[in-house]
Amino acid sequence: MRRTVFYVSDSTGITAETIGHSILTQFDGIEFDTHRIPFVDSTDKAQAAALRIKSEYARSGQRPVVINTAVDQALSEILAGSGALMLDVFAPFVGPLEAELGSKRRPAVNRAHGLVDFARYEARINATNYALTHDDGLDVNYAEADLILVGVSRSGKTPTCLYMALHFGVSAGNYPLTEDDLDKLELPARLRPYRARLFGLTIEAGRLAQIREQRRPGSTYATLAQCRKELAQADQLFRRENIPVLNTTHTSIEEIASKIFAQLGIERHLF
Amino acid sequence: MRRTVFYVSDSTGITAETIGHSILTQFDGIEFDTHRIPFVDSTDKAQAAALRIKSEYARSGQRPVVINTAVDQALSEILAGSGALMLDVFAPFVGPLEAELGSKRRPAVNRAHGLVDFARYEARINATNYALTHDDGLDVNYAEADLILVGVSRSGKTPTCLYMALHFGVSAGNYPLTEDDLDKLELPARLRPYRARLFGLTIEAGRLAQIREQRRPGSTYATLAQCRKELAQADQLFRRENIPVLNTTHTSIEEIASKIFAQLGIERHLF
Repeated sequence: MRRTVFYVSDSTGITAETIGHSILTQFDGIEFDTHRIPFVDSTDKAQAAALRIKSEYARSGQRPVVINTAVDQALSEILAGSGALMLDVFAPFVGPLEAELGSKRRPAVNRAHGLVDFARYEARINATNYALTHDDGLDVNYAEADLILVGVSRSGKTPTCLYMALHFGVSAGNYPLTEDDLDKLELPARLRPYRARLFGLTIEAGRLAQIREQRRPGSTYATLAQCRKELAQADQLFRRENIPVLNTTHTSIEEIASKIFAQLGIERHLF
Repeated sequence: MRRTVFYVSDSTGITAETIGHSILTQFDGIEFDTHRIPFVDSTDKAQAAALRIKSEYARSGQRPVVINTAVDQALSEILAGSGALMLDVFAPFVGPLEAELGSKRRPAVNRAHGLVDFARYEARINATNYALTHDDGLDVNYAEADLILVGVSRSGKTPTCLYMALHFGVSAGNYPLTEDDLDKLELPARLRPYRARLFGLTIEAGRLAQIREQRRPGSTYATLAQCRKELAQADQLFRRENIPVLNTTHTSIEEIASKIFAQLGIERHLF
């Protein structure tokens, strides 16, 4: 069974897609064809969107689902003209919130993902630059880091650092364990002052070998034996130095970030 | 006026915070203190969360708002015991969707941001690696790029490429215009085969000077005159080569990404 879903928004459509994705994954056995229609902020664009949705209805014979964050009621009504099942993301919350806050909402098109809070946006960009320039563990100023991820090569440090920076403005440093560290089972001296901010990443050896093989096919670096050895040494080092560890094998970067923030007591906001 | 808002989730809390942020920005004149309480997936954790929310209520004397994506009804009821205004993100949509799809939802804790679709997740990580290794415009294989961002140094190319990769699995190349390109007003030969995938980024000169000054204080590179000159040349080059352009000065990376995808006809999904 297949159904078509349109995420329609007067802005980027990110909110509509985020909530839609979360709900749709709760329905098993149905395949959803999803389409984002962003920046629907005028009558013309709403009419064009409605036409596209209506055509899909006619083509498939199945009623499309529209997950809609357009705040202008007039635009929503145009979209509803398509005959789709309309699910308005904000509508259910506006009444209770207005009553609770004693204040009317002022729907401003394009606000949620616009540059509302410039300072916070700049912090995200600066943290991203920090992650990029502190990615190799060389010549790094860890004093400025909110946290430092430690692990063997390709254990998931870099994407996690970038995600933390881009989304939360968290400056995450990155320390790739060297052969020397692993042989000595010791942290390098320059990491010791920041022990409370260290977090270890580990991964299953089979998965690591796969990832390394993609990067350097046929290398010793990518063999299962090498991966097993490094991971065992790293785990021993983490235990010995009392560094908390997370296994990234079955964990998305969203989950890794949330878990590490929770464990280190870092509270930061999205956007 | 201040109000406290808790985003509570059995998973990362990203969906709760995304929708909450979008709604709260529609209320002017109220300052929201927001807190994420993720991974509330057991009775114990729900009780601890309820206690924290209740304490905040007692402390401030103001009823907190809970934006909740916990799918287990029993956990929601424990949270409601805190006395907060409970806003359940999924509840309003479940009934209409179940009726439309002729299927009951099967609420699975932790699914939306888990590693449901491994291939798609891997595409995001691979695209991130692509962005990282193709960030300097040197020795770059543009043939694999879904799109290529072109602009002067610090016009916003790198964060945009990383965002597109991490979220959408889009492999975005990055070409920093050189002095030579700008003086000749010509694209380098190796970009020409990919003309249909090029997208220009520009930025206000004053803002660019500010960003560059942070990076290289006191340099010629950071002077307003230098920024103006490079930007004028780049704009001329974009016009001459018929490359679409977006001004990033007042635009978030979320908006930049959505606008470029829409204009180049790239349809990709979040998550």
